[in-house]
Amino acid sequence: MKKNLLFSAFFAIGAVSPLFAQESFDAAAVQKIRDEGMNRSKVMETAFTLTDVTGPRLSGSPGLRKAQEQVAAQMKAMGLQNVKIEPWGEFGKGWQIDKSYTAMTAPYYDALIAYPKAWSGSTKGAVKGEVVIVKADSLPDLEKYKGKLKGKFVIYDSQTTQAAGDIFQADGSRNTDARLAEMAATQPVTPGAGPGGRPGAGRPGGRGGAFAAMAFRPKLAEFLASEGVGLIINMGRGTDGTLFTSNGNSRAKDAPKAGPEVEMSGEDYLRLLRLVKSGAKVEMEADIKTSFYTKDLQEYNVVGEIPGSDPTLGSELVMLGAHFDSWHSGTGATDNAAGSAVMMEAMRIIQATGLKPKRTIRIALWSGEEQGLLGSRGYVTNHFASTADMVLKPEHSKLSAYYNLDNGTGKIRGVYLQGNAAAGPIFRSWLAPFNDLGATTVTISNTGGTDHQSYDAVGLPGFQFIQDGMDYNTRTHHSNQDTYDRLSADDLKQAATIIAAFAYNTSQRTEKIPRKALPAARPPQTPGGAGAAGTAPARN
Amino acid sequence: MKKNLLFSAFFAIGAVSPLFAQESFDAAAVQKIRDEGMNRSKVMETAFTLTDVTGPRLSGSPGLRKAQEQVAAQMKAMGLQNVKIEPWGEFGKGWQIDKSYTAMTAPYYDALIAYPKAWSGSTKGAVKGEVVIVKADSLPDLEKYKGKLKGKFVIYDSQTTQAAGDIFQADGSRNTDARLAEMAATQPVTPGAGPGGRPGAGRPGGRGGAFAAMAFRPKLAEFLASEGVGLIINMGRGTDGTLFTSNGNSRAKDAPKAGPEVEMSGEDYLRLLRLVKSGAKVEMEADIKTSFYTKDLQEYNVVGEIPGSDPTLGSELVMLGAHFDSWHSGTGATDNAAGSAVMMEAMRIIQATGLKPKRTIRIALWSGEEQGLLGSRGYVTNHFASTADMVLKPEHSKLSAYYNLDNGTGKIRGVYLQGNAAAGPIFRSWLAPFNDLGATTVTISNTGGTDHQSYDAVGLPGFQFIQDGMDYNTRTHHSNQDTYDRLSADDLKQAATIIAAFAYNTSQRTEKIPRKALPAARPPQTPGGAGAAGTAPARN
Repeated sequence: MKKNLLFSAFFAIGAVSPLFAQESFDAAAVQKIRDEGMNRSKVMETAFTLTDVTGPRLSGSPGLRKAQEQVAAQMKAMGLQNVKIEPWGEFGKGWQIDKSYTAMTAPYYDALIAYPKAWSGSTKGAVKGEVVIVKADSLPDLEKYKGKLKGKFVIYDSQTTQAAGDIFQADGSRNTDARLAEMAATQPVTPGAGPGGRPGAGRPGGRGGAFAAMAFRPKLAEFLASEGVGLIINMGRGTDGTLFTSNGNSRAKDAPKAGPEVEMSGEDYLRLLRLVKSGAKVEMEADIKTSFYTKDLQEYNVVGEIPGSDPTLGSELVMLGAHFDSWHSGTGATDNAAGSAVMMEAMRIIQATGLKPKRTIRIALWSGEEQGLLGSRGYVTNHFASTADMVLKPEHSKLSAYYNLDNGTGKIRGVYLQGNAAAGPIFRSWLAPFNDLGATTVTISNTGGTDHQSYDAVGLPGFQFIQDGMDYNTRTHHSNQDTYDRLSADDLKQAATIIAAFAYNTSQRTEKIPRKALPAARPPQTPGGAGAAGTAPARN
Repeated sequence: MKKNLLFSAFFAIGAVSPLFAQESFDAAAVQKIRDEGMNRSKVMETAFTLTDVTGPRLSGSPGLRKAQEQVAAQMKAMGLQNVKIEPWGEFGKGWQIDKSYTAMTAPYYDALIAYPKAWSGSTKGAVKGEVVIVKADSLPDLEKYKGKLKGKFVIYDSQTTQAAGDIFQADGSRNTDARLAEMAATQPVTPGAGPGGRPGAGRPGGRGGAFAAMAFRPKLAEFLASEGVGLIINMGRGTDGTLFTSNGNSRAKDAPKAGPEVEMSGEDYLRLLRLVKSGAKVEMEADIKTSFYTKDLQEYNVVGEIPGSDPTLGSELVMLGAHFDSWHSGTGATDNAAGSAVMMEAMRIIQATGLKPKRTIRIALWSGEEQGLLGSRGYVTNHFASTADMVLKPEHSKLSAYYNLDNGTGKIRGVYLQGNAAAGPIFRSWLAPFNDLGATTVTISNTGGTDHQSYDAVGLPGFQFIQDGMDYNTRTHHSNQDTYDRLSADDLKQAATIIAAFAYNTSQRTEKIPRKALPAARPPQTPGGAGAAGTAPARN
């Protein structure tokens, strides 16, 4: 272990030449953590509770409320202190599915795989009707449909004729040695390229026709609802019965009543489309019931702590976090019950070892991540600083680092520095005892799309680990198949062990984790831009 | 082309040394066939009609009846003669799904992926109930459940805890050169090993405990139905939303009324199981309606002909065939709309070229294949000979060869000789003009599980082509995902072209295709054995 550690500490990242000293840590404590995490893991028990037992956890839904209460109770049972279900701000309407049934009834009967789109409405009970294609790219295109769509089941045209993917390509993969070496060799970002990514940076915003068509979809859906269609049907991504469901109608408190709308598996959707295009009379039946909840428009994060044992450092913080919310089909297993279960397990491991961290270690399980990192952004604004004015709150100086996990069920292969070169030698040392478990790589690179960015945006050290991709992008991420079945026990066990060690090491370190320069304030965007309730794009 | 042909003709099969002469054929005619088949293919149009338009084609169902009428009309429209929907014998009750809805309602709502098991009954309208595990391997085990299961949703225990497959393995593959070389080098079967496989040979029949448990399932289902359970739920094979549905309850005319019974996707099933085992209260709702049809217990094959143009040879026959029936989920695209569409296309190609085959070329689209090659066996018994007595009917001497396609959407890589070594040099020559399309391999091997076996069993030359496997065994074969999307246009086009050439060459050949020795008569098995209506195992 010692040898590994020395080797690792002398291995510089690519062209970066930080002034590094030997980073020391309590190897015996880390060994204790490793023993507990690898030999007495309870991560799959927690994962079972977070998936099968609690079900989907869409932000604002009763399902998430119940899950938050369950996990808060679990935190208390684990002996965590200051457990809170803490509001972070207004999210919008809650919503859930009470019934979902769709079937083709002519030219023959077949039950179809479809899920109500988030924040969509109900059918008028059990309804039947003809399937029709609506072609419209702008409001004038809709004129010809006025008064003609009552009770119809509406689909849109598509150039796609067959739904099958590449059958010669495996769904899943792990990082190769070559890929990891490439990441390790990545150069630091050039100055001026930003402080390591900010929420909303780099999103596609105006790619002409396709984007205009996408932007028109909500208006189109509103028109169709007002015409009293039976059901609006969108083609979902995915094949083989896997259906990716994400995004949704507006959840804003003043949003108009949405029509009934589903996302349907590619195979089922394209069959409808091919049949209607061929001139066949196609009929469907559906019975969809959804409920909206407006009593409490707030959303919450769940937090809990192992209080710091050091009289001085105890007031300082190490944070672990993962988003706890999911989309509404499947049970959000890899996105992100996996990360949540790993963070709960990391806390359990530390507790079980009997180690007494000097700094306080706080876990936060976020909500609203899928709608734009909302829970973590709200928390960071409430506790540390707002990106709008960059006025630092007292806690800003107290946080050492925030560690995040949100890239599925794959084990940890290393860590992204988010451009924070000074943290490199530290993390490289800390990974050394886990090199044999495949965790070797420190990259200067950023990664985006999850909650460490909320910290990074206000100049706080926030890190996401490098994980093996597995079948996250091809099969599980936001899909109806993101269930307990997709969780890899060995991978999650490894991840929880490494994160427990990182958290403990961070809590014991003489200094806090080095920081990058503070970013400049970014006044809020104009109203109606990305980030307004109900219009924020989906994030993972 | 000539060079290929000579090369091919001198390339002997493994250790077999047949006395072969140069097999001549009309290369110009074959070129015409290739041009029509490869450049003006209509195979996907036919496949669309056989899948999307006609839907599932379970033997005995109204869906198959309608599809048979449609395809007979298509045969007539193509100019085929003597088109008939020809009864082959008693099949049993017809059955179809009128409605299928299942959902979990507690601990939270989620619609589930499930299909009624073939020939299963209806729920008592829309029903709700608690999910319970029944553990029983024999009748005495059932005592403790008497009077306790009314309205319950019954699942069985399983050792499996997670449903995911191997995510690092691609669903699909093609035959490698090495595999084809291995097939080409296969030795002839030793004398006494049978005449090339017989229907029913080699099936597992008594593997102790596992088989006993399987055999007990129908009795168990009967008990559960009699106790008035709400729904019986079986775990289906398959992952990712793919659900393999096959086999079924008894279709016999005197079979007792079956209870409502579904096969459910692994992920959904195992979630129910994990939850119930954990002590959670799990509830479901379901609304399943199925219909039985007893007015006509016969089943039918659809046949049509291009009459032979030669005054003498015109009374002789070449047959092409594929089974037209499917299981009841998906639309039986690769099993076997693919083979049916290819055979229809082969007939169309011959018609379109204007060639006048000397022998009659007859297409047969079978039913009852999935229940044990019943349609082709019935046809062979009615037209050629019964395996029971091997008394040859006059047509037996008239058939040159039967060609079959039933291994999915993959292109043709060669042909199985079924132990008929004398046919090897002929087929090797005929494949030569298609070597560049990947069809190169002649193997002495048998292949089983489909309708050429019905011919082989009475000493008639029946052949199945070697096809690329694609994702047939992993994804499509008997699954809810066996839809039009899985059909590969290029592969089917190639297959139809090659089969059209084989059919034409067979019709023109001076002699009929050589035959193996006639097999001995095999008196019928004792009543209740494999093959009795309702108890025959599923075949592909």
